Amino acid sequence: MVRLAELTCEACDKSSIKLSSDEISILMPKIKDWELLVDSDVQKLKRIFKVKNYTEAIELTNKVAELSDSVNHHPQIILEYASVTVIWWSHNIKGLHNNDFIMADKTSQLFE
Amino acid sequence: MVRLAELTCEACDKSSIKLSSDEISILMPKIKDWELLVDSDVQKLKRIFKVKNYTEAIELTNKVAELSDSVNHHPQIILEYASVTVIWWSHNIKGLHNNDFIMADKTSQLFE
Repeated sequence: MVRLAELTCEACDKSSIKLSSDEISILMPKIKDWELLVDSDVQKLKRIFKVKNYTEAIELTNKVAELSDSVNHHPQIILEYASVTVIWWSHNIKGLHNNDFIMADKTSQLFE
Repeated sequence: MVRLAELTCEACDKSSIKLSSDEISILMPKIKDWELLVDSDVQKLKRIFKVKNYTEAIELTNKVAELSDSVNHHPQIILEYASVTVIWWSHNIKGLHNNDFIMADKTSQLFE
């Protein structure tokens, strides 16, 4: 089965439609270790990547930043001493799009 | 008058004493644009740096990370599309130390 990380993000603008609860339920098991959260009524995907030290934390932050800039879809990245937290959602639609699941899995792939 | 950014952090361990409310009140005006917040009973200093684009956001993140690693005192850095949020506090003492005010001002200096 093709993993989400192998897919390409599609264009997403304000007219795009948020994923339904059913669609989200089907996709969540495909991105192991990611948590679904609701922040000010906006559904988001969050994963905390634990690393050994600050050097690794900076390196991962830069890899995620480079990946996200390459597809012009930018997550929130929280850099701390021994962890990097990545939170994906689609600002345009104030919620989750297929792209966020693809990017979450691509982010996991960077860490593997 | 010497600005805080010109000072050097001193050693801070679990036996160090948190700044009092009076001390914090005297120091806050010296770090313009920083906000005092309380997060799970821990006082912290927060500033949101607005930048033009993601490239600038990544650059600032790396500058703050490099600065913080050079003194082995690491803030929380939140990287977003057009902003970098920096939050300083001293993990050891679960609160604010002079070092945090020095580092906050050094962070502002990086942005100037």
